[in-house]
Amino acid sequence: MAEFKQTDQTKVRRLAERGKYDHETVYSILDEGFICHVGFIATDGRPVVIPTAFGRVDDRVYIHGSAGSRMQRMLATGIDVCITVTLVDGLVLARSGFNSSINYRSVVIMGKATPVVDPEEKARALYLFSEHLLPGRWDEIRGPSEKELKQTSVLAIDLDEVSAKVRTGPPHDDEEDYALPVWAGVLPIEVKFGEAEPDPKLADGAGVPEYVRKASRKRNNEGTKN
Amino acid sequence: MAEFKQTDQTKVRRLAERGKYDHETVYSILDEGFICHVGFIATDGRPVVIPTAFGRVDDRVYIHGSAGSRMQRMLATGIDVCITVTLVDGLVLARSGFNSSINYRSVVIMGKATPVVDPEEKARALYLFSEHLLPGRWDEIRGPSEKELKQTSVLAIDLDEVSAKVRTGPPHDDEEDYALPVWAGVLPIEVKFGEAEPDPKLADGAGVPEYVRKASRKRNNEGTKN
Repeated sequence: MAEFKQTDQTKVRRLAERGKYDHETVYSILDEGFICHVGFIATDGRPVVIPTAFGRVDDRVYIHGSAGSRMQRMLATGIDVCITVTLVDGLVLARSGFNSSINYRSVVIMGKATPVVDPEEKARALYLFSEHLLPGRWDEIRGPSEKELKQTSVLAIDLDEVSAKVRTGPPHDDEEDYALPVWAGVLPIEVKFGEAEPDPKLADGAGVPEYVRKASRKRNNEGTKN
Repeated sequence: MAEFKQTDQTKVRRLAERGKYDHETVYSILDEGFICHVGFIATDGRPVVIPTAFGRVDDRVYIHGSAGSRMQRMLATGIDVCITVTLVDGLVLARSGFNSSINYRSVVIMGKATPVVDPEEKARALYLFSEHLLPGRWDEIRGPSEKELKQTSVLAIDLDEVSAKVRTGPPHDDEEDYALPVWAGVLPIEVKFGEAEPDPKLADGAGVPEYVRKASRKRNNEGTKN
């Protein structure tokens, strides 16, 4: 099983048994997530955490934004960045608050961003953002214009220093607490697409395309990914 | 309408019309979120972003963890911290990739954490974590022991430098794109509780309590909060 290396920064220390470094776990979490949280140090020296969309291909993650955005401009200079993707799967209801927990899967990526300037890689990254969120969409929409490509900043971060942390399963209670008359278990949290809401400016009678309808009835992670 | 002050760091500059500073918007986003992403600068000088649970009361947010965790120990020293809560509401499917977007509500809090040492405030914070995730649970579970309280680090961050950013509604396309034969609209993303999964170690016949069953049938934000 191919694994990412464990470094001082990425090695999971607390509850080390939750640490995962294999490619499959890391990829599956990244591919199911809708957004990542990007951490960097602002010019005033303070940490900032901003949510944004992302895409992945092989061992590379892409984020994008307006060429004028502060985050894109700062990250493009090659400062350190941390990208975290978290999926929340359920409330773990133990017999005590202390042993209660959350089932989750998260990935933490540390590194530096590289601006994507090659037009082909940039176009491919934009395709990825779209297909990551809704497979099939890219074929229908208008492609990017020269001007739009210039206005869009795409950054690549390699999956080099990366680790996952995963908690699954029922609560782990203290031995003596199992006798308590307290209901215990897991309350799953599900992320689903709802019914598509047509744009009010859409021509009357325009039906919802199949790739949108099908997406609306299944979890994102059951979609076709990579 | 009571508002948080806008500072150099919290003022939303890109797409400034999405910036919100009123208490109601900030509180409602924080109260609907399950987890926050905590950003800080590690001892090696690099930014780190870690997901964790949180609770809020008035203008104060609490996070907690093992007294031995790196994050809790570092934050307790009073270093700068950024806490971000993001709710993803839908995919905004425009007629071009460039105008496609995501409907979301996020809150960014900047400040410093203060360790909660007062036993009463600490107990109240633990109650908040529980009730924030599942109202009604606290009454049923075993309360914290002296030893557990000692093993738990609770940190408070005041809502002082805080802002929200919100995107809602249909796509905004370029005028000439409205004539394209492309379906457009919003694909809502819903976060729901699923059916409760009893702990395999639970006594046979133990029914799922009403506050768990009811929670499993509604969105978290429709629950009783505050």
